[in-house]
Amino acid sequence: MTFGGREGLLLVLSGPSGVGKDTAVQALLQADPTLSFGVSVTTRKPRAGELDGKDYIFVSETLFKTWIAEDRFLEWAWVHGNLYGTPRDRLLEALTAGRDIVLRPDVQGALRISENFPDACMVFLLPPTWKELRARMEKRGGDSGEEMEQRIDAARREFNYLRNYDYVVINDRLEDAVTTLLAIVRAERCKVHRNKILLGPEEEISD
Amino acid sequence: MTFGGREGLLLVLSGPSGVGKDTAVQALLQADPTLSFGVSVTTRKPRAGELDGKDYIFVSETLFKTWIAEDRFLEWAWVHGNLYGTPRDRLLEALTAGRDIVLRPDVQGALRISENFPDACMVFLLPPTWKELRARMEKRGGDSGEEMEQRIDAARREFNYLRNYDYVVINDRLEDAVTTLLAIVRAERCKVHRNKILLGPEEEISD
Repeated sequence: MTFGGREGLLLVLSGPSGVGKDTAVQALLQADPTLSFGVSVTTRKPRAGELDGKDYIFVSETLFKTWIAEDRFLEWAWVHGNLYGTPRDRLLEALTAGRDIVLRPDVQGALRISENFPDACMVFLLPPTWKELRARMEKRGGDSGEEMEQRIDAARREFNYLRNYDYVVINDRLEDAVTTLLAIVRAERCKVHRNKILLGPEEEISD
Repeated sequence: MTFGGREGLLLVLSGPSGVGKDTAVQALLQADPTLSFGVSVTTRKPRAGELDGKDYIFVSETLFKTWIAEDRFLEWAWVHGNLYGTPRDRLLEALTAGRDIVLRPDVQGALRISENFPDACMVFLLPPTWKELRARMEKRGGDSGEEMEQRIDAARREFNYLRNYDYVVINDRLEDAVTTLLAIVRAERCKVHRNKILLGPEEEISD
């Protein structure tokens, strides 16, 4: 008897800007190579080291808006002056094929994904303190002082959406956060409701 | 910011007779010493190596029935001609004090515990095949041929209750099953609804 007939798990990892979503997702994908990353589309400029097609699909605002008109996004949103979106078709195909996908949307986007996929596993990544969140944003750089204050304010508001998530993970030491994320993935794969064949008549799973 | 104000997690590990609940629970408790075992009461005779007060509280049928009359059980049931029960008061005290408790009831008992504790984390342990279940029962010994056939029949019926559980874990290699159980415990401790302080106003968790 084996697990089988399972749709892909959709792991939605979100949390405030600066909390370290990108680093955590990269480390998680390295630690569990059976997970695939669902690349988002954005109009923001690439940061140092970010690759087009791997970290994000970087497009112009004009192209993004064409794709909105063509209904190509599962969800999209303005975040800090840039557009971000999750492409619909590729994601649905991957899940139907049984692949486990990790998305890394902003907090608003995550909630809209959850409305479309009530079965999505929603994880909120929190900084150990607000002070640490500010320190991480400063270290990352690339934002003006005003932009950073806006991000901090947004993070405090976003914290109120925690109740719409399934899991909360404190991103203090990266290794600990990744171990917890791996545990969540392992546990979710064993959820009874995700393993449909096992719920069939016993004859189907007899020896 | 830390996790806090959390009630104890109640992990209910069940599954058919012979699947290896006892061994799995022992290995889990060794691997995570912050878990405590909620010892059950039974009228069945101790098997080789079983200790009174550690594996079970072994009592006479007369005493068990007195305790039923005194309403000391959260749940109790006849299983294969013996009485089994979960003592109520000790369990409630431990959970309120924030201790994480593992119970190992039979499948009927687990369902009644879940009715009393909707928040309990319900895990169903399955054998890799029915053939393997029979082999394990034979290896364990202590049952007559007729008793064994009764247990196998019961196991097939109990499989239909799988849908009332949260997680299903195949107990093929013990180490794999224990790793999965540890992951489930780690994941469940991060459930948003179990971490009430984090859901308070943001001022409470500010730096």
